[in-house]
Amino acid sequence: MFVLVIVISVLALVFAYLLAQQILKKDQGNAQMQEIASAIKEGAMAFLKRQYGTITILSIVLALLIFAIYAFSGKFSYGWHTGLAFLLGAACSAISGYVGMYISVRANLRTAAAVGKSLNEALKISLRGGAVSGFLVVALSLLGVAGLFYLFGGLKNPLEAPLLMVGFGFGASFVALFAQLGGGIYTKAADVGADLVGKVEAGIPEDDPRNPAVVADLVGDNVGDCAGRGADLFESTAAENIGAMILGIALFPVFGINGIIFPLVARAFGLVASVIGVMSVKIKEDEDPMKGLNRGYFLTTILATLGFALASYLLLTQFWVWFFLAGFVGILTSVAFVYITQYYTEYKYRPVKEIAKASETGAATNIISGFAVGLESTGLPVLVISAALLGAYFLGKFSGVPDGGLYGTAMATMGMLATCAFILAMDTFGPITDNAGGIVEMSKAPEEVRKKTDRLDSVGNTTKALTKGYAVGSAALAAFLLFSAYLQEVKLESIDLAKPVVFVGGLIGAGLIFFFSALAIRAVGRAAYYIINDVRAQFKEKPGIMAGTEKPDYARSVDICTRGALKEMILPGLTAIIVPTAVGILLGVEAVGATLMVGTIVGIVMALLLNNGGGAWDNAKKYIETGAYGGKGSATHKAAVVGDTVGDPFKDTAGPSLHVLIKLLSTLTLVLASLFLMF
Amino acid sequence: MFVLVIVISVLALVFAYLLAQQILKKDQGNAQMQEIASAIKEGAMAFLKRQYGTITILSIVLALLIFAIYAFSGKFSYGWHTGLAFLLGAACSAISGYVGMYISVRANLRTAAAVGKSLNEALKISLRGGAVSGFLVVALSLLGVAGLFYLFGGLKNPLEAPLLMVGFGFGASFVALFAQLGGGIYTKAADVGADLVGKVEAGIPEDDPRNPAVVADLVGDNVGDCAGRGADLFESTAAENIGAMILGIALFPVFGINGIIFPLVARAFGLVASVIGVMSVKIKEDEDPMKGLNRGYFLTTILATLGFALASYLLLTQFWVWFFLAGFVGILTSVAFVYITQYYTEYKYRPVKEIAKASETGAATNIISGFAVGLESTGLPVLVISAALLGAYFLGKFSGVPDGGLYGTAMATMGMLATCAFILAMDTFGPITDNAGGIVEMSKAPEEVRKKTDRLDSVGNTTKALTKGYAVGSAALAAFLLFSAYLQEVKLESIDLAKPVVFVGGLIGAGLIFFFSALAIRAVGRAAYYIINDVRAQFKEKPGIMAGTEKPDYARSVDICTRGALKEMILPGLTAIIVPTAVGILLGVEAVGATLMVGTIVGIVMALLLNNGGGAWDNAKKYIETGAYGGKGSATHKAAVVGDTVGDPFKDTAGPSLHVLIKLLSTLTLVLASLFLMF
Repeated sequence: MFVLVIVISVLALVFAYLLAQQILKKDQGNAQMQEIASAIKEGAMAFLKRQYGTITILSIVLALLIFAIYAFSGKFSYGWHTGLAFLLGAACSAISGYVGMYISVRANLRTAAAVGKSLNEALKISLRGGAVSGFLVVALSLLGVAGLFYLFGGLKNPLEAPLLMVGFGFGASFVALFAQLGGGIYTKAADVGADLVGKVEAGIPEDDPRNPAVVADLVGDNVGDCAGRGADLFESTAAENIGAMILGIALFPVFGINGIIFPLVARAFGLVASVIGVMSVKIKEDEDPMKGLNRGYFLTTILATLGFALASYLLLTQFWVWFFLAGFVGILTSVAFVYITQYYTEYKYRPVKEIAKASETGAATNIISGFAVGLESTGLPVLVISAALLGAYFLGKFSGVPDGGLYGTAMATMGMLATCAFILAMDTFGPITDNAGGIVEMSKAPEEVRKKTDRLDSVGNTTKALTKGYAVGSAALAAFLLFSAYLQEVKLESIDLAKPVVFVGGLIGAGLIFFFSALAIRAVGRAAYYIINDVRAQFKEKPGIMAGTEKPDYARSVDICTRGALKEMILPGLTAIIVPTAVGILLGVEAVGATLMVGTIVGIVMALLLNNGGGAWDNAKKYIETGAYGGKGSATHKAAVVGDTVGDPFKDTAGPSLHVLIKLLSTLTLVLASLFLMF
Repeated sequence: MFVLVIVISVLALVFAYLLAQQILKKDQGNAQMQEIASAIKEGAMAFLKRQYGTITILSIVLALLIFAIYAFSGKFSYGWHTGLAFLLGAACSAISGYVGMYISVRANLRTAAAVGKSLNEALKISLRGGAVSGFLVVALSLLGVAGLFYLFGGLKNPLEAPLLMVGFGFGASFVALFAQLGGGIYTKAADVGADLVGKVEAGIPEDDPRNPAVVADLVGDNVGDCAGRGADLFESTAAENIGAMILGIALFPVFGINGIIFPLVARAFGLVASVIGVMSVKIKEDEDPMKGLNRGYFLTTILATLGFALASYLLLTQFWVWFFLAGFVGILTSVAFVYITQYYTEYKYRPVKEIAKASETGAATNIISGFAVGLESTGLPVLVISAALLGAYFLGKFSGVPDGGLYGTAMATMGMLATCAFILAMDTFGPITDNAGGIVEMSKAPEEVRKKTDRLDSVGNTTKALTKGYAVGSAALAAFLLFSAYLQEVKLESIDLAKPVVFVGGLIGAGLIFFFSALAIRAVGRAAYYIINDVRAQFKEKPGIMAGTEKPDYARSVDICTRGALKEMILPGLTAIIVPTAVGILLGVEAVGATLMVGTIVGIVMALLLNNGGGAWDNAKKYIETGAYGGKGSATHKAAVVGDTVGDPFKDTAGPSLHVLIKLLSTLTLVLASLFLMF
């Protein structure tokens, strides 16, 4: 079985490579398109290079620090294992982000070139381009975890190896935090900056090639959604695998090593289901592309369910039905999250319509209404997560296996993440189609082609919103898994909120989420000033830009925005790491456990508020643009634009960074647990 | 000592009566002023009558329900004690709200009449008018708790009586919830409605007598800040008294009955300090009124500290110094909260200036910046509460008294609430001066008089913001006290967040806060539509209004807004009661304990976000109106007005309602604990 996991992961990597080759061979369109695409490509790669440069330095410093702390306190073996695992996790995350981006900034051009000929072909290219990211993320996380397990002697010593591997999850979290923060700040700073200077000051339309910030804006979509969310879900899968393996240790008397490697097998089968699902997607030329994606998603879900049942049957002895059902609860949860997110962010439904109507009385009522929708949108997901946790827990408990309850919640997490590769393919589909739209727009393609890319682009907006909902839900379940692992690690029986010290730990956890969100949102505003000033300077230096006789220096704007974003990500990033570490050292393991748990709870609801509020504002504007309440250009539309702008840093910077922060809290406390115990 | 408490409370009531008489004798200004004031008075009283009518029915139903549940399950004695205490608590809260309003809607006219002659005289009338509320709230809560204690045989059976009294706190919470919700919805619906129809549609200035909604707006200031906050702090003091008395039971072996009645004695001494503080306030004619109030606050703080020391010395045997110090921590906390709130909401400091600057680039950046400030403003208060809880806990622990730690946190709460009557006087000072400004404006008084009322009004805005900060801080400390009482009541040793059921309870607590905030904010928008439609109808029916030849029907607008607000308060109010009850019944006492604790934590940070964000937006607009960034009428100012409007339901409806919700969660779980234990 363990060999099967390795084989499937390697095959998935090979498959991703072949898929990439296939995409790269596609038609690249005309010279004008290529020129724009190459500017985006260079900008994106320059960003990644600089960003991963910073992250590499930070990672190496932290790895040495971890090693030094543990070596110094006599835990030499734990130190080097954890330090090595940390670096490996960081490296795998970085590689999957880098390669995913590499393909996505090439698939955008091919999609733009194909869309004139066939919508089906364009959909296939963009989804498969996204799938390269998706397969890579899941396969590398699987291979990394399985490889470490083998390396640390897990096949011989299955009860010890998982605890040594938590560094891998921490490494993945660490990279994800900075990837998501840096990418999120960059993308919104470029977006806001390009809009404010272009639309407001210079009076030129969106995606106009005369705007020096326009390429930075297109680059931003890639670094935020592709690299950022990829790292986010890489972390989820890695943390879930390791957390579930640790819980499997407790069930060793019942299942033997099979209970420990089960998470890897289930994930591998889910990966196969996603591959088949992605390859099955096709549409008729006049069909809504979302329908094609939905068919693929349902095929994947069914196959993943079957795979999960098979894995349970093969590995979990006579108890398999109970645990399969717990896993099925997780699969249902992911479907529920997809629907709830749609309800709150699509303009077919009441919430977004309400915001659009409120825009009639101005920007203030638009904001109030959107904020209320965001707050309200936390209710159903909270109930779904609650039901999933309790359902899976009691299914596991009723199996009769001792400690089976917690393993049941682990199953639900695995079930939720089973379709991860497909979801991620849909997510990265977003920036690819968005970029294709930009390329078509800037290369002045005919109206009918633009309409087609617009259709793909709006589907991409939906899938991006769905992935965020999915990411929050899976973060919530994965976090609960990691709590349990943490408690095992520090040998605590309870996190007793009634103790003042623990209560204070919880209070600080809630405060951290709010404070971190403030820093992330503010960072966007600051970074936007860099690019605004640069665009103003370019307009001054080259007066021919507006007349079309001179070309703006896109690369300079990209570079300035990159430096701004990377500078601004440091403060929120360090806050996220220093606060829980300080609580652990000063107030002890139980208090930091409360920081972790209350922080997770608050992080989930806050992320839902920010993601869904932002998505709803965005689509309220789009709804008005379809002609409702006066349509584009009306006072109502202007009011809705305010909400859309406010929602940008909410949904693309602070919200997604919170998913990562939640998991970082878990992996950080796990890795530093021994340190906290020393004080 | 017990007799002394009764005597001081009764004397304070007499004093409040004499103060009221003195105020009512003051000059009532000219006929025009009296006409406006009488419209406000009638509107406010009509609102209260209707509101308390609704609340009375709801209270009686709930009291009967409580009695029936317990009688049915064989706990007959507990049932009638709790039901009776509930009704008494509700009645005391209603009486103090009603009488406080009665004076405040009369003090406004006297302040307006005095301001032309002497600023000092106007300050004295308005502060003392507010003090009637403040003294009444504290004295009635003290008298109610002490009376119940006596009635339930507490002097003979001190170990049983406090637990029978929790119904008093629940009654107070229940009235406070609806008073604050109804008042908060009313005040902002009227404000937003009057502005949208008056300023935006009809193009007439604020406080213009031609606007039919203008009186409703002035009434709103009273029902929100005076009646609402009064009920809020009535609940805090009552809940704190009872909670601390319950903790005193555990220390009975050490302090005897003295430990149980200590909270009453400390509160009585604090009341005396506040009376002296209020009466000492006076200013020179050209002085900033805030300076006079600050002098009075510091005198009160010093006297309250001395009183606290004296009470500790007299009642807490040789351990008194430790517990006095714990109480002093609470007093310091209240001072810290006052300063932090000032920092985040006054335009002298960085945060508000930042928002004003962000308004230059439009409404969107104004909103983003204000939201970030609100999020950031949760950081310091969280640290202060953490430090206060831990400091007081360890002071109590180091005293060597067994279980002294929790009694230490109780001391901190008492210390924080010692100056409550003075704070409340400052708070009610706000609507009185605001109304005085409106009366002066509408009666077309000379420019120099208006300038004086503007000065008082702006001081009133500051004191209102400070009180909210104080109310959050004291709610946080009081809640921790009530947790401990709850644990004693249900005989639980811990609230273990690591159990799935308990974790789910906590998650639902966080979701409740977000969902409740959504309902509260949305209710304002809905209620505003009632008044907007009425104003539009009045303009249509009486075309002479705009020309000044016909008089608008102020009372009709007041009545419609009243009905709208009362209708809209029902849904959020019931949500607040049903959710924790359902969690308690379905998931048990430990899970609902987590709902309570996590709900409290999230409620605190959310209330801080809403209150401080709203206050900062308000003052950013005011800062620009002083001439910064283009001043009044500029595009920057228009952007800042958007933020101000968004902040209104945040800071005056949802935020203050959350203070009340936090305490309601505690008192509700305490009262229903026996019910939860049955399932």
